Parts: sequence; C-alpha cells; structure tokens
Amino acid sequence: MKQTVKVGLLGLGTVGGGVYKVLRNNPDVEIVKIAVKDKNEVQEIEGLDKDLLTEDAKIIVTNPDVDIIIEVIGGTGAAYEFIRIALENGKHVVTANKELIAKRGEELFEIARANNVLLLFEAAVGGGIPIIMPMKMSLAANKFERLAGILNGTTNYILTKMDQDNADYQVVLKEAQELGYAEANPDGDVLGFDAAYKIAILASIAFKKKINQEDIYREGINELSPIEFKYANDFGYKIKLIALAQDVNGKLDVRVHPMLVSTKQPLAHINNVTNSLVIQAHPVNQIMLTGPGAGEMPTASSVCADVLAIVSEIHTTNNLLPEMRSNNTETAEIIPIEETVNKYFVRIDADDTPGVIGAIGNICSKFGINLNYIIQKDVSETGLATIVILTGKTQEKSLIAALNEINGLSAIKEIHKVIRVMEL
Amino acid sequence: MKQTVKVGLLGLGTVGGGVYKVLRNNPDVEIVKIAVKDKNEVQEIEGLDKDLLTEDAKIIVTNPDVDIIIEVIGGTGAAYEFIRIALENGKHVVTANKELIAKRGEELFEIARANNVLLLFEAAVGGGIPIIMPMKMSLAANKFERLAGILNGTTNYILTKMDQDNADYQVVLKEAQELGYAEANPDGDVLGFDAAYKIAILASIAFKKKINQEDIYREGINELSPIEFKYANDFGYKIKLIALAQDVNGKLDVRVHPMLVSTKQPLAHINNVTNSLVIQAHPVNQIMLTGPGAGEMPTASSVCADVLAIVSEIHTTNNLLPEMRSNNTETAEIIPIEETVNKYFVRIDADDTPGVIGAIGNICSKFGINLNYIIQKDVSETGLATIVILTGKTQEKSLIAALNEINGLSAIKEIHKVIRVMEL
Repeated sequence: MKQTVKVGLLGLGTVGGGVYKVLRNNPDVEIVKIAVKDKNEVQEIEGLDKDLLTEDAKIIVTNPDVDIIIEVIGGTGAAYEFIRIALENGKHVVTANKELIAKRGEELFEIARANNVLLLFEAAVGGGIPIIMPMKMSLAANKFERLAGILNGTTNYILTKMDQDNADYQVVLKEAQELGYAEANPDGDVLGFDAAYKIAILASIAFKKKINQEDIYREGINELSPIEFKYANDFGYKIKLIALAQDVNGKLDVRVHPMLVSTKQPLAHINNVTNSLVIQAHPVNQIMLTGPGAGEMPTASSVCADVLAIVSEIHTTNNLLPEMRSNNTETAEIIPIEETVNKYFVRIDADDTPGVIGAIGNICSKFGINLNYIIQKDVSETGLATIVILTGKTQEKSLIAALNEINGLSAIKEIHKVIRVMEL
Repeated sequence: MKQTVKVGLLGLGTVGGGVYKVLRNNPDVEIVKIAVKDKNEVQEIEGLDKDLLTEDAKIIVTNPDVDIIIEVIGGTGAAYEFIRIALENGKHVVTANKELIAKRGEELFEIARANNVLLLFEAAVGGGIPIIMPMKMSLAANKFERLAGILNGTTNYILTKMDQDNADYQVVLKEAQELGYAEANPDGDVLGFDAAYKIAILASIAFKKKINQEDIYREGINELSPIEFKYANDFGYKIKLIALAQDVNGKLDVRVHPMLVSTKQPLAHINNVTNSLVIQAHPVNQIMLTGPGAGEMPTASSVCADVLAIVSEIHTTNNLLPEMRSNNTETAEIIPIEETVNKYFVRIDADDTPGVIGAIGNICSKFGINLNYIIQKDVSETGLATIVILTGKTQEKSLIAALNEINGLSAIKEIHKVIRVMEL
C-alpha cells in the first residue's frame, strides 16, 4: 500500500480552487491544510471542508507532517517567504508563480538544492500546456537554439479581436476587461511584463543561465492601431505579441514585443486566449506546444502534474526527479535591442512624387539594408501615398539610422510604428 | 562522480545513426556495442568506431555489463525477441518501434514489470514530438477524453501537395517516393497502417486499456481525388488523414481515415511531413503538440530523451520513473465504424431538375439527419448539377441508409466519396 502524501495548499483563489477540486479526488494525496487570507472571504466550493482552512500559512510550511507545499498566492512578498521556509523545512514545493520564479527563482532553487527537495513550476509558464517538463526531460538530449511564442492570453485575445473586427485597442481592452480576460489595471499583461517573466523562466531553462529580468527588452501592444492590422493582413501576416529567446554566439537575445507572423506559420493562427511556444533545438528541429495559457482548471492541471510527479517517487528515492532540478550559476549576457538582428515592416506616409521610392531604396542600400519589397499603396485624397517596406535581416541600429535619414527627405510626412517580423 | 551508463544499440540504420551521433557526445552514456545485420553494409558515419560493431545482437542483450538496450531495428520478429531477452536480463529498453509496441507492447510491458525495468517508446509516436512523457507525466492529473491528430508524415506530405497543386494522388505519390518521403511500397503509410499503430499506442496510454490492432477501422488516402480538395477549400476545409481515439461512454472509438478539418483550426495548417496531436482532457481542456513526425535526428531526440531519463535515475533508485510504466489489464471494446457518430461531407451528381434538393432533404430528415447545409454548385455542360451536403452529427449507419435511399432517386447520377468532418 502506498502511503498518502500530505499536501499543504497556500491560497484558494482561482487556481487554488481548481487545484483543490482536482486533488481532493486523488487517493494518493491528502490536502491537510489550506491557508487563506481571510476565512470569511473564501470562494464557494461545493463540499469544501472548512476545517482545512487557516489564516496562518506559517504553521503549514513548518508542519513536519506536510510533504508538499503548493503555493498559489502569487506575488513576490509572502509567497517568497513561505516557499523559502517550506524548502528549508525539507518540503517539496510546487508553484504557479511566474513573477516570483522569474525574479527570485535562482535563490529559491539554491535553497531547494541545499535541502535536497524539488521546486517545480510547470504552471508558471503556459498555464495547462506541458512546457517545463518536456523541455527538461523529453528534450534533454537537445541543444536549444530559439524559443518563440505567444505566452500571454490577455494580449492575444486583444490582438485577435483587433484583427478580426479591425477595432481600436481601447475598445477591445474594455471588452476584454468586461469578459474577465483583462484586469482592471491591465499593465502587467498589455505592457508585456507577464510574457517577459515567462520567457525569462524558459530562457534560463533552455540556456542554463540566470536571466536578469531588467535586461529583457519589452514593448507592449498598447500602441498598435487597426491600420497596422489591415496592412499586416494585406501582406499575409498577423500581429502577435511574441516572447523570444535565442542564443546568438553565446549571448542571449531575450525580448517581448509585437511581431508580424506569416499566415503560413501555424503560430499566426493561435487565437484568443490560447498560448503557444515554438522551440527550435538540435537535434529535434522544431516543436510547437499549444494550449490554454491560463484559467482555473488548465493551470490546476499543471500544478497537479507537478504534485503527482513528486508523489510518484517520494517514497522510493531521496533524489527524486533529478532532471527537474534547476541550478544555474552563470548570468546571461543579454544583447541590447539596438544590436539585435531582425526583419522590419515599416509604413511611411509620403508625398506622391516621383523618386521617393528610389530615394528610400538608396538610403537603405547605404546602410546595408536589403529590401524584400517596397510597395506604394493607396494614395489618399490629400495626395499622400503610403509606402510599405519589408526589409531583409538587419541590425536594429542600422534600421534606426536609415529611418532617421529617410525622415529627413522632404517628401516624407510620417514614419509610422515599425514592427519586427518573425522568422520561424 | 556519476558512473557511466552502458548502452547497447541494436540497429544502425537512419534512426540508429542519429542516436549514435547524439549519444557519443554525452559524458554520462557509453555505447559499448552496436548490433548490425552485416558489418560490411554499414552506413558511413564519421568517426564511427568499427570495433563497436557486431552481427550478434544476442551477446549484447545478454551482456551483464549493459544497462540499457536501444532497439531501432524495426519490425516484430527479431526486435521482439531481442527486447524480450533484454528485459528478462534486467536491462531497461528504449525503442522507436511503433508496430511492435502496437501489436505486442502489452506482452513486453508485462515482462518489463516482472523484471522491474522500464520499456520506453517516446520515439514510436510523433518522431521528435514529446507526446508519451507529457501524457503520462505532465497530464497525469487529467482524464483523457479525445485524441485526434496527424500522425503520419508521408500522407500529410501527399495531402498537402494534392491540396496546394490540385494534383492527382498517383503523381504526388511518385514525387514523394523520389524525395524519399514515401517508400517503394507505400502501403504502410498511405493505407493508414502506420497511423493506426500510433493511435493504438496513444489510446492505450490515454484510456489505460489494451487495444486490439485489428479492431481499428482504417481508411487510406489512396481514393482521394483533386476535386475533393477543391470542394473542401471552397467550404473552408483542408483534407487530413486523422487518427482519432475517443472515449464514448466507456467504449472506445479508435480509427484512422481522411477528414475535413476547418481552416479555423490550427490542425488544418499542419503541412508537409509535420505531425500534430490534439489532446482533449479534463481539467486541462485542449493541448496541441506539433513537430517533426519522423527523420533521423528528430527521432533520435526522442530515443535519447528516454535513455537520459533512465540514466538520470538509474543509480539512485531501483524503481525509476514509475509514472512511465505501462500495465493495462482490460481490453478495450472498440465501437464499430457503423456505430460511430460523425458529421459528413457528401458530394452528389444529379440532374438539374426541380425538387432534387427537397427530396434529398426529406430523406435525410426521415433518418433523423440534420443538414448544416445543402448547396447546389456548378451545373456542367452535360446538365448535371453538383450538390454538396454537410450533415449534422449522425450515426454512420443512418447516413449509409439515407444515402442508399437517395441513390434510388431517379435524378441522382452518382454519390461520390463521403468524407467525415472533424470536430475539435
């Protein structure tokens, strides 16, 4: 007979409720205590045993009978303290806390290592999508080259609606807030912080280095307008908020910003709140993992998978799941955005006069920028022409320099938002 | 210091060569012997130590110094014998052999269980895509409801080309053979045997039952013609060879046949030799795993992942990776194809006379079949009209009965190939 594994749950919000519902039916696991902020403010869960509730998380993380702590409080304050104490008390910890793992994961992994316990965090990235364990175990024989994905459901929902309805950002944001897909203060999502936490976590796994969160270049979706989606569609692209991490000769290129994704790529068809990660590695080549990036039950699926992985080995070895341990010593050198290499989509308003396209082409050529195409689109009733450029690969500072010079041409009225173009 | 784990490799063909190239650089693993059919017929691999080669696989699988056997011979004859002997000799086994696992996996799992060793087979399904381990570990807290996917690269390549070039099956098959994507005798792929092995393996994992390979309904791609692709495109679909397994009230619905997949679904955009599996489960909801379904290096990635998973635990526990063990006692009851429930796409040639559509509608209604649409398309110079029907969900035997009756209408000239329609 297997002994029941005793679990303490910290937090009973959306994810915590899902975890409780899934684990209470599992015969190998017993939830012995649930820490909540206020016992009188607990969500209604049918059949919830109120005797499990406590407002004192400390007694759970120090309880000698508890084997595994599940942390679904969120944030980097109390959650950090409780996880630290739990690890120091020899408990395995499972968390869904991306911000904490991104910002202070390495400290906590070190404490876990010193106490020979596991700190697992599958649910921190991609909600219900299996990502961390496949990367660490199923792709263990690989050298990772690039990760690129849609890792934030809120922004993908907004971008999908802006594309489908050709609607304004503010209108769609409001709708997303009403539907509960975006928070009252949406900055964490729409400015790219959430995706940046996630790509930092994945980059540290893929490239086995510490990532300083502040080094990650970040650009949100809040400056996109319907006209960009229209042009993107005309040229066979969708606009997605892409989190990217790639190895460039030993330095890392890690960033989050909108990108054009060709509709020939499955990633362009990942819509609404779905998340998807494209992994480029050797020898496997390219893998794409897709699914629900958030939500009560999908996130609970990943939290519970981590719990069950620990449960499966806890009674037979004191060195369980060695491939799932994290321990990076070196800190990554992150390439500044100006030195990254990209293709670019540029839209320019100009007088409809002869020679403009030639002049733009000459300036690009001078800066060593190849043009995949340069097209003059609509001429408006004001006589302004829209010129659309898709460049070949070039360093961002070359593009900026070229655009500065192009901006000095008398025929140029406005250079609009530049959007980088995804290559898969 | 970790002790090196000793590996014996059976087979040095395409996958074996890839495995050798990946593992020879791994410091934790030592390939001590490689069994080949004929030492003089071995492929050229730079730096291959010819002293490792032997024509006697038996001495490898009985060698007390060998910890892990990798079987990449293929087939169900010698491969079965060598794996059985290896397991009985207390060796862990990693295989890429889908036919063997589908047909005789349960016998071998039982021998593995009796000898407390692992038999892993990630590479048997989906080549380099992590599927088996994510299903068994990352989705361990889930109840699987449905698996549906593109699991054969050869047929997906052919279908992609038939769609893109509106080309004949025979023409594209020949091209695929010249490119090495299809074998000289393509039956294993194009008639759906390969996909059927794979879905049998996945169904046994998802639903924890033995699957009799003969019970799986199978229909190939060899009867599809360009006209079907044209109509599919007109109505917003692609045609894919889908391997399906779903639980229907405790019975299993497991089958392989062409289906229409809506272009709104990412699965419709999985092209060429790429494979993809859509997993529907509770609580995670829907996950999609995509990547290279075959090939030397992707398949080696999965074989080596299994090897490294064993290596990671081999020295610390004698009960390694308990979640990865397989042991099904009950045999699945498979629903006959006539009793399955589907939506259907039917194309009918009929005289362009009034009342035909009404008559068809009446017959469908009589058999309880809802029509999502019925459309009269082109009228040819011979005066024949093409009528296209998309039914609602109905049992296959009702559809067959209705089509029989429709076929008796005097205006009907021909009912063409019926294609089932995917619902995700």
